[in-house]
Parts: sequence; C-alpha cells; structure tokens
Amino acid sequence: MITLASDFGDPYPAAMKGVILGRCDARLVDVSHTLPRHDVRTAAFWLRTVLPWFPPAVHLVVVDPGVGTDRDGVVVAAADHYLVGPDNGVLLPPARRLAADGDDLAAFLIDESHFSPPVATFHGRDVFAPTAADVHEHGIDAPGDLEYLEPIEIADLVDLRLPRADVGREAAEGEVLAVDSFGNVITNVPGSGLLEADPGTVTVGGGRTTETVPFRASYGAVPVGEKLVTVASHGYVELAVNRGRGDEAYDLEPGSAVRLSW
Amino acid sequence: MITLASDFGDPYPAAMKGVILGRCDARLVDVSHTLPRHDVRTAAFWLRTVLPWFPPAVHLVVVDPGVGTDRDGVVVAAADHYLVGPDNGVLLPPARRLAADGDDLAAFLIDESHFSPPVATFHGRDVFAPTAADVHEHGIDAPGDLEYLEPIEIADLVDLRLPRADVGREAAEGEVLAVDSFGNVITNVPGSGLLEADPGTVTVGGGRTTETVPFRASYGAVPVGEKLVTVASHGYVELAVNRGRGDEAYDLEPGSAVRLSW
Amino acid sequence: MITLASDFGDPYPAAMKGVILGRCDARLVDVSHTLPRHDVRTAAFWLRTVLPWFPPAVHLVVVDPGVGTDRDGVVVAAADHYLVGPDNGVLLPPARRLAADGDDLAAFLIDESHFSPPVATFHGRDVFAPTAADVHEHGIDAPGDLEYLEPIEIADLVDLRLPRADVGREAAEGEVLAVDSFGNVITNVPGSGLLEADPGTVTVGGGRTTETVPFRASYGAVPVGEKLVTVASHGYVELAVNRGRGDEAYDLEPGSAVRLSW
Repeated sequence: MITLASDFGDPYPAAMKGVILGRCDARLVDVSHTLPRHDVRTAAFWLRTVLPWFPPAVHLVVVDPGVGTDRDGVVVAAADHYLVGPDNGVLLPPARRLAADGDDLAAFLIDESHFSPPVATFHGRDVFAPTAADVHEHGIDAPGDLEYLEPIEIADLVDLRLPRADVGREAAEGEVLAVDSFGNVITNVPGSGLLEADPGTVTVGGGRTTETVPFRASYGAVPVGEKLVTVASHGYVELAVNRGRGDEAYDLEPGSAVRLSW
Repeated sequence: MITLASDFGDPYPAAMKGVILGRCDARLVDVSHTLPRHDVRTAAFWLRTVLPWFPPAVHLVVVDPGVGTDRDGVVVAAADHYLVGPDNGVLLPPARRLAADGDDLAAFLIDESHFSPPVATFHGRDVFAPTAADVHEHGIDAPGDLEYLEPIEIADLVDLRLPRADVGREAAEGEVLAVDSFGNVITNVPGSGLLEADPGTVTVGGGRTTETVPFRASYGAVPVGEKLVTVASHGYVELAVNRGRGDEAYDLEPGSAVRLSW
Repeated sequence: MITLASDFGDPYPAAMKGVILGRCDARLVDVSHTLPRHDVRTAAFWLRTVLPWFPPAVHLVVVDPGVGTDRDGVVVAAADHYLVGPDNGVLLPPARRLAADGDDLAAFLIDESHFSPPVATFHGRDVFAPTAADVHEHGIDAPGDLEYLEPIEIADLVDLRLPRADVGREAAEGEVLAVDSFGNVITNVPGSGLLEADPGTVTVGGGRTTETVPFRASYGAVPVGEKLVTVASHGYVELAVNRGRGDEAYDLEPGSAVRLSW
C-alpha cells in the first residue's frame, strides 16, 4: 500500500500515480492533495494525525516548496512504515508518531542523479514516486537493496517540531495548529488535562474577545450556532461552533495565540 | 467493496480508510466527501441517486451533525447492499431505492460501547469505519455474526422522506432538491410526465420571474447561455442553462418552491 | 486499469465508477474531476500532459458539453492505450502523444443505441463507462469483438490541435495554454530552446507590462514572492512566482498572448 499526500490540487497527483503503477502494483490511497499550499508545518500536523490510522505502508509526501533547490530527498523508516519525500521537516512529526519508540526510526538519502529528473520542478513525479514504488517492492531492510539510497543519521534531517503548549492545572497557553475543513480551530493544547478536569466551561482568550464557553464532548451538545470547547478526534483542544465555523466565530487562524483557563 | 461518502472535505476521510484497511482488504471507492455540510436531506438525495449504480457493496455514509449525541449508529441491509452510518434519516432514502422491494430491508443497531470511541466527535473513524469493515468481512446474514449488532425494526429508524411534488397532467408544483456542481437545478418533479407529453416549452415559476423556456433532451439543444428545461440523469425535471449555471439564471436554491406548467 | 477524467466535480463520477465495477474488476484511477468546465482544449492539454505517465490503460474522458447532441462517441486506440469519450477533439491530443508513432492510432465509432441511454444528459455513465469496461475486458484488437464498435478513420474524428508557438533563436511568440492549481502560467512555448540558450533572464511581454525576470530551473531559486521563468514538468516555458501565483502577478489567463525574448 502506498498513500499519497500533497498540496498539488489537480491533476498533478495523477502523474505520480501513473509513475508508481508503471513500476508496481501497489494499492494507492489518497490522504489529501489539498494540504495548505507550501505549508510544511500544517502538512506535518495533518500527516501526524492521519497516517497512524493506516496499517504498515509507504507514504509518499510531497509538500515541497524547495523542489529543485539543494534540499535533499529522503526516505524515513518508522517502525513498519516508510515515508518518502523532501527533507524539509514534513516527514519527522508523522514518523516519530508512527515509530512511537524513537529507536524505530532510520533515514536514507535519495541520490537524485539516479533518476536524472528531466526538469527540477516536479520531484514528486520524477524522484519520490519511483522511490516510493521501489521501496514498496523491495523494502530497504538490507543495506544496498536500493543502490540509490544511502543510510544517514536521523539527526541529520531537517527537524521540525510542532510548537508545544504551556499547560498548567487550570490553564494553558498555546497556539492554533490548524483549522479543519469544518472551520474547527485545532489548538496545540493536549486534551488530557481538560478531559480529567471536566469543567463545565472554559474561558478562551486570544481571539476577538475573551469569553467563557461550554466544555462539551460533542458539537451537538450545544444549540446550533453556539460556541463550544471540545477535545476532538486528534486529541487536542478544539474551539468549535455547532454546525458553524469556529475560525470565524473566534476570529482565529493558524499561528494565533490562544489562552485557555478552566 | 466499500464505498465512502461524507461531508468531511480533506483529510479526515483518509483516517477512515486507514481504519478500514487495517481490518480488511476491501476495494474502496469514494462516492463524495464534499456533500453539503450537515445537510442530511441533500446527502440522502445524492446517495439515492448514485448508490444504485453500484454492484452489491457496503456503503459507509457519514453526514453526521449529531455525532456524539444520543443519536444511534445503525446498519441497514438493503437487498445485497449494506449501509452503515448515523440513524438521522440519511440512510433510508438510498436503502429503499436499493431494496426496490420493501421486504428486502433490515436494520441493526450498533453497540457503540463495543468500540469504546476515545472521543465523541469522529464516529466515522471510530465506530462506522470498523463496522463497515466487519460487515464487509463477515456479513450480517446470521444473527449474532457480529456481536455488537442488534436487530431492530426498520420502523424504529429515523425516517426521512424527500418531499414529493404535486403533479398533474399539465402542471406540477414541487421544490428544488439540490443544485449540482454544474449549477443545474434539480427539482423533485419526476420526469415521466414531461417525457410523455413532450411539450415544446415549459413555463417555469418560482424563481425571479415566471418565464417560458424550451423543453429539450440535451443541454446542447439550445444556444450557449440559454435556459432550458430537461429531464436529466437522476430522472427528475432539471432547470438548466447550456454551458452556464441554472441556479444563478433562475435564482433558485435547494428548498425553493417551483411551479411548472406545459 | 481504467483512468477517469471529467469536469464533473462531485458526485457524478461515482455513478460512472459504479457502472464500471458492475461490469468488470479493473483498477480505477482518478486523473481529475475538476478539469475546467466545458473546456475541451484545456482538458486535452492536461490529458496529453498526464496520461503518458501511465502504463497501458483504458482512459475514460468525459468533458462533453455536447452530450446528447449529434456529436459521436468514440474509442481511440493509441499504442497500448485506449481512450473512450466524446468525439469533440478532447481525445486526439493525448492519443497522438500516447501513440508517438502516428501509425499506432485507430478509431472506432460507438453505436449509442446499443446502450439505449435512458436520458441524453449523462453519456459518461450510460455509454462511455460501460464501453470503457467492455474495452478493458475484451480489448478491440479483433474486428467485431465488441459488436457496437465500428472501425472508422482517424481523419474522420474532430481534430483539435493545441496552438503552436512561433519560436526563433532568441524569441518566441505564443499563448497561455493553462494555469495550474498553483497559479503557474503554462505557455505553449517549448522549453528546449530556452534550456539550450540558458539565459540569465527572459523578457516577458503580453501581460500587464513588459518586464525582464530571472530564468531559473526551480521556483526556490528566486526569493519568496519574486517572479521567474522556468521550464516545468510539462516541458513548456512557465511564468511563475516562488510560493505565489503567476497568473495574478503577470495578469495572464488561458488564451492570453505571450512574447518571450532572451
């Protein structure tokens, strides 16, 4: 199984699929091709959120604003998964989550010259897609199985860590990691503290105003159009509106600072 | 085969696919993940329109604004098909169409506690996706095959019936069921009467004005930019513009009243 | 393998998939369902760009503004590929590219009456999808293998040739073929001349102003927000902005005239 994720929209992902299917017979599963454009951090968040639900697979990840520059292409092995893409930080957050145990991580540098990409603007098609197909077919367990992959240290990869919130017993300071397609505002405040405290309300600051809103387990637990704070499917505190858009109601966007107290 | 339909946009559907593929090896086919958000009625219309073109399959349907509230999760067996999703009405219109004969319907309540969903906001991933995979693998022909499914009466499900038009020999009063991605205005007036009468024109009221437009079998039968009335692929009377948007030209939207005479 | 391309958006492509899967067990791969609506020329460009990356396959192509009129439905055999869709010009540009050698082209007329389409507005579902499935299963190598296909001359098809640029040693006059989802402006000027000359800059006229911008191999070779000229993955000269939208920066759209000198 090979999953595909990119910020390409249409129809460039199809060229990657064609290349893969010319080299192997893997099942292909789209993760998303509408990841926020050129936004490595948000892509890393979504991949860290979604990829752990997959059985062992090769994950082709092409959010690659530096394509054709001197940024490297790499394969990261994470437990039974392989991630293939640019060395710009997008691979490590999902890889760490997939590995769970840091010992299960390994990295390999792709020798681009092996593929002689005809142009420098679409390594997703010309370098990463054939690498993903080859890794799917041959694996990289044995050094040298794929001649164009060279073992490197994980510490040599571009590191990108999603920002951590400052969390106390009754308050947290963090920021907005992402806004999902429903308009739900996903913060970087882990939900565990709130779930344990289970307060009736949470005071939310950072957006247009400071306000106190209900803390609930589901969107439908408040009237339609009303705000709530919840812990959602990614495990983080989310600022939402039942059947509405939290980003608009709270006036928050990715990167906005958020203060919560309960 | 498991089809997937939701109002999720990206990338949440991929989490459901990961869960399914961790449990079975079914072929996955996306029906749509851009169904109108929280709009159970329109989702039911589109599923009733599209699902009957599939061979027997499990259909995972997650338009679920009440997720995490006391609404139930159910499986509906309809002839050789199974629909899995929330008991909010979205499943019955396509199920009735798939069954054709009402005797071919059966329903089962999902015991959510079997899955212990870690949060209450994504039953598509935590309850319905694993149920769809299990139904695909085991079927539910034999009572007790899946311990967490309990037979219930169809009459106990939330019923949702799409509104019926009032149709006479030379006129009909109905409403707009949906606007498709081309902007075609799909009414709830069955096309059979118009196809039989085959008038040269139809008088359309309900939008900005009352006007008389050509009745034609294909969009291209009127000049580019001109209005027409046609019977389209869903079998209903459609108000369209050749290579343009009917919703804008007629000033109609889902729920708008429509009067036709011919 | 059957690929699918259309301008349908959602959820009509799913009906075509259901029909195909009711007739055969082919792997299905989406090329795009957001091709520019009713735009046969741009669809032809994208299909010519993307389809050659696939191994031999049946390609279902439904950009069909004339559906239900007297335009024909055809199958074009191009080397080991088959294209199925309307005879409106959309099939020949990708077919010629797939065949490489013009001798490898053959065409067949679809007898629509074989399928008795119930309505005239969705031949993608009612005629082309079942034809694609049948071609996938039976092939059309032997005359008469599929009774509803009649050999015709390639010369009898609607011809559509993408406009050619007028290219000299130090200048070219052409036009914009397409704008991709990143906003990159794709001209019809082949990249070979520029790649050979490898100038430091290119003077670009045709948009809001005439200006001289860097010629670079990758987007990231200029600062974020700056313009560049590059030769991109389709082999043509592209007018782009690093991490920005070239169409907005240059004020160009499909069909705009472009003058380049270097």
